[in-house]
Amino acid sequence: MALLAVLANLCMSLLPVMANAPTDIRMDEKARTIHRIDSINILVYTVLLILTVCLIWAFKRRRARFLHETGLAVIFGLMVGASIRYASEETETSHLRVVPLNNQTLPDPGSPPDNVFVQLEIQKTPDGSRENRSYAYTFRGELTDVESKKLDQKATFDPEIFFNIILPPIIFNAGYSLKRKFFFRNLGTIMTYAFFGTTISCFVTGSVLYIFVLALPHLQFTFNNCLYFGAIISATDPVTVLAIFHDLQVDVNLYALVFGESILNDAVAIGLVSAITSYEDVSNKATEFELAAALKAFSNFFYIFACSFLIGSSTGCVTALITKFTKLCDFPLLESCLFLLMSYSSFLVAEALELTGIVAVLFCGICQAHYTYNNLSVESRQRTKQLFELMNFVAENFIFSYIGVSMFTYKKHHWDLFFIVAAFISIAAGRAMLVYPLTFLLNLGRTNKIPMAFQHVIFFSGLRGAMAFALAIRNTLGLQRHVMLTTTSFTVIVSVIVCGGSISTLLRWLNIPVGSEDHDQELLNITQQQRAQSELRSPTGEPLKTPYEKAWLVRKWYNFDVRFMKPFLTHSRPTLIETLPSCCMPLAHLLTSTEQLTQDDNCRHTREDDSDTDLCLDESDFNFERTNSLTQASQALVNHVYYIEK
Amino acid sequence: MALLAVLANLCMSLLPVMANAPTDIRMDEKARTIHRIDSINILVYTVLLILTVCLIWAFKRRRARFLHETGLAVIFGLMVGASIRYASEETETSHLRVVPLNNQTLPDPGSPPDNVFVQLEIQKTPDGSRENRSYAYTFRGELTDVESKKLDQKATFDPEIFFNIILPPIIFNAGYSLKRKFFFRNLGTIMTYAFFGTTISCFVTGSVLYIFVLALPHLQFTFNNCLYFGAIISATDPVTVLAIFHDLQVDVNLYALVFGESILNDAVAIGLVSAITSYEDVSNKATEFELAAALKAFSNFFYIFACSFLIGSSTGCVTALITKFTKLCDFPLLESCLFLLMSYSSFLVAEALELTGIVAVLFCGICQAHYTYNNLSVESRQRTKQLFELMNFVAENFIFSYIGVSMFTYKKHHWDLFFIVAAFISIAAGRAMLVYPLTFLLNLGRTNKIPMAFQHVIFFSGLRGAMAFALAIRNTLGLQRHVMLTTTSFTVIVSVIVCGGSISTLLRWLNIPVGSEDHDQELLNITQQQRAQSELRSPTGEPLKTPYEKAWLVRKWYNFDVRFMKPFLTHSRPTLIETLPSCCMPLAHLLTSTEQLTQDDNCRHTREDDSDTDLCLDESDFNFERTNSLTQASQALVNHVYYIEK
Repeated sequence: MALLAVLANLCMSLLPVMANAPTDIRMDEKARTIHRIDSINILVYTVLLILTVCLIWAFKRRRARFLHETGLAVIFGLMVGASIRYASEETETSHLRVVPLNNQTLPDPGSPPDNVFVQLEIQKTPDGSRENRSYAYTFRGELTDVESKKLDQKATFDPEIFFNIILPPIIFNAGYSLKRKFFFRNLGTIMTYAFFGTTISCFVTGSVLYIFVLALPHLQFTFNNCLYFGAIISATDPVTVLAIFHDLQVDVNLYALVFGESILNDAVAIGLVSAITSYEDVSNKATEFELAAALKAFSNFFYIFACSFLIGSSTGCVTALITKFTKLCDFPLLESCLFLLMSYSSFLVAEALELTGIVAVLFCGICQAHYTYNNLSVESRQRTKQLFELMNFVAENFIFSYIGVSMFTYKKHHWDLFFIVAAFISIAAGRAMLVYPLTFLLNLGRTNKIPMAFQHVIFFSGLRGAMAFALAIRNTLGLQRHVMLTTTSFTVIVSVIVCGGSISTLLRWLNIPVGSEDHDQELLNITQQQRAQSELRSPTGEPLKTPYEKAWLVRKWYNFDVRFMKPFLTHSRPTLIETLPSCCMPLAHLLTSTEQLTQDDNCRHTREDDSDTDLCLDESDFNFERTNSLTQASQALVNHVYYIEK
Repeated sequence: MALLAVLANLCMSLLPVMANAPTDIRMDEKARTIHRIDSINILVYTVLLILTVCLIWAFKRRRARFLHETGLAVIFGLMVGASIRYASEETETSHLRVVPLNNQTLPDPGSPPDNVFVQLEIQKTPDGSRENRSYAYTFRGELTDVESKKLDQKATFDPEIFFNIILPPIIFNAGYSLKRKFFFRNLGTIMTYAFFGTTISCFVTGSVLYIFVLALPHLQFTFNNCLYFGAIISATDPVTVLAIFHDLQVDVNLYALVFGESILNDAVAIGLVSAITSYEDVSNKATEFELAAALKAFSNFFYIFACSFLIGSSTGCVTALITKFTKLCDFPLLESCLFLLMSYSSFLVAEALELTGIVAVLFCGICQAHYTYNNLSVESRQRTKQLFELMNFVAENFIFSYIGVSMFTYKKHHWDLFFIVAAFISIAAGRAMLVYPLTFLLNLGRTNKIPMAFQHVIFFSGLRGAMAFALAIRNTLGLQRHVMLTTTSFTVIVSVIVCGGSISTLLRWLNIPVGSEDHDQELLNITQQQRAQSELRSPTGEPLKTPYEKAWLVRKWYNFDVRFMKPFLTHSRPTLIETLPSCCMPLAHLLTSTEQLTQDDNCRHTREDDSDTDLCLDESDFNFERTNSLTQASQALVNHVYYIEK
């Protein structure tokens, strides 16, 4: 660490001072200095990540589980942040106080202008003469503390970079690598946790916190502020806990519950944050509750969520269609590239339309995995999987390092010990209200109940991570949000290191079996069981009850998916020609690829091999008769050729 | 395209105007607007890339060769740029003219301050009252034309992004995927072209141009400016022409010459640009030639080039050592990640030390391919290859689209038709002086001469591309550089579309055989020939002459590489135990991995299978006796264990 600080120091102090150069070259110098500072900033994080990678390797090799990789990244980040802060000298930026030119009114009296133009008398050093030059300055932010501007250039990033560059691959990868089998099996429970649970958590955390902050009048926290904090802190992080679960091979249902909840609640938390902001807008920071505004905020939340969902999933479907109906798979590079760009564009479209890109990119990832993946060439499948895995790893570790570094280098921190303690209590209360009452209600309807031990684990594994931090740092206007940022950063660090580190102990303490069975092996067993059971039909033709009962909605959707969505979007069988009513035949032929018809049932696109098996819903749900499909298919192929030629 | 413009328009016009919100929320709004504009900008390019990918696929499918993918990207870019410019309404940014507060002196009288702080009276709308708030504004640039500031926010990127994000993967990939066999065989010729050729091209282009611009006094071009232009335009682009060569399967030596030259001359051009800038600094824009300054500039050039080379290659070697001596290959994800981060850090370290990162990353790529690649796990090899291929593809097409778009949206263009014509003539003259006289001299020393037809192709394939544009846009201070940027952009577009499009016609016209033999097949033949020849030693023990004679330096280096560098940095045989003198045995044992000793000669790390065969220098050069290596190795293993235990 000290080495790094020395390096940073050395680089910083190398700043050449060109005393006798004319202004143009000075300007070059300025641009060059900015470039150097940028490079050093990125370098610090790159070196940090390299060290983290090496250390992760060392930990993995020794099978040390008391500290997870994200914990390592945070701790490294803290060390580097401290050394940057205390060891390196401060590079001061120069500033000048200016006032508007006489008799000029603001372009918009309610907000500062985007740019200011200032005319300065610059000394041309060679001959000592002076000349007037005009410079443009861009809006940066409101000034609360002139002195603290000094450290700003060091190791701080534009929050925009988080949202536009770092977060999308993490969230997309979560969707793309979702273990859909157990996810869909527990869909109802997961949705309940994510939607109702996160809302409950947000309101409980906010309310409990509000009671505490009434004792802290100097912070001027309104109830809205507390709710805002409740929303950002309700976004739990899938990264740390899931990596631990994966290493330990815990029960697959527990895994699915924690994973599903932590993925979806990011999306819900973002929705809540924007709903609360829009409520604030409408109610003009009023502290009293306004029904109309609240309703508007909630309708806004559903509107944003639904639209983002639509954009994400339709982008996924469009990609599936492109890869299905073009022979793009002959060029895996182009194919992977298109896949990457389409996925990213779902994020951008949603952001550009002022929806939430994170929600869009999550559902885009799920659709891509569910449909497009089946159309990709073997090389592209591997390439996309590996690419997103790598991007996810780098982005994740970068965020956690950054959280660590920014604890020291970010200037907008505002520590308030009482507030932090209050926040911890409120967060625990919110999490408890999410887990225990909801699970009690859910258990009333579930055939396989969620045992109390699992509930404790779910409670405990609500770590806070990247998303909470990103939401907190996105908006740092005013004292309240500085306090929130500090508290969120601190909560993230504590939860990742302390909770993340002790979760394996907890699992042992609660006697939850770990490492007993291989995940994939277990899946295989279950699939075989199910298949065996689906053969055992009762004499009336009714299938026997399977161990996992699915909700009516899930069953309906599955049926619709296999009969219409999959045949439409992928090369899978049965084709639309077989599933659509006969009146739609021309359309069905148009939407069926020749590949779909020419493959025989042993080919890679049958249901056993494609991503659909991940869904792991038993065969008995699927009412379509498959026995004669081969003969039907050859007949269909003849028809198809006939239709196409026509 | 119209659709895109409508989309952009729609998004832009959706800007909500919050009339009655307090200032804090206005500020939120401002941040949100900036975020939206960012998203739309990136979205425009993403959509552009998606369209380009689809069109490339269509072209590849029809085997259309008259227009290359980069040409497509440029044309698409031009169309989108035009529609953004003419179809979408201008979003005006608000600005305010300000003056320094009374009695305040500039922090530095010779240059503008980094930030200005302005106090404004902002109206709090709900009650109509006003309050004073301070805002910070960051330096953006010199103002030459207030009116034109309007379009600035549209579809323009920070040039920093080019240099820090887009260029490194392209250059790294060039080094990493370098076909080293033919590259090393023609090393002398390539180096001559790159170092002397580029310098000649720069000076000839600059001088010819200077004669022309004497007729254009209003542009105020000095000789230095002309040289600067000569340097940036001397960076030829490997992308387009090589893709065409690869598709057409031209002669491997021609391929190697064009590839090697265009890769290395980027590095040389960057060096020349910074040398010319430093000459300018020293000579204070004097038009007369100053020997001391020129010498200083040239020593500076060599210093920068050598240091960048050192940083790049030592980063590569460090990565090789890490991958050799740790068992990181058990975790391919960590391994690939480390590989990626180390490679990027070579760029950043060089940039942070004010050297040229591009040179560093190029040689880092070559070292990574030559050493580290051999230590990687099979999965990581594939993953890194595919990753860089993808990044390269996206980055490349992005740059070419951007060149197209920026022709319309970038505000600093300054068209001067006469200058453009003059530049074209000078560039052709410079290129001709690079190719023909140098090749004549080189042919004196070469056994296999470069035929005249090849020389014409080399002359013609000096397309200008990403690097020239990046160098031009990096610095746009003053009228001269605006003219240079415009001319460079135009040259790039013309050369990519016209020259890139007609190169296959030229090859046919010059009767250069294309597609006759498969590259890899040819390599195999040559390798087999060489192996056969190396067996045929003359009675004196002297090897027979091989068809490709190598320079003395190359032979020496190769010998050193195989005896010391490869055993030290990779798992390859012979080990250092066998090659180092006996006095260094403890060191040799320390630096030899057990894997190196335990593998037998048929293992994957033998010279036939690793990347070393790419070097394709025949066996006869290698004076190390290999006959008894197996028995030696087992003896060495025993010693090794002994040393390690000690």
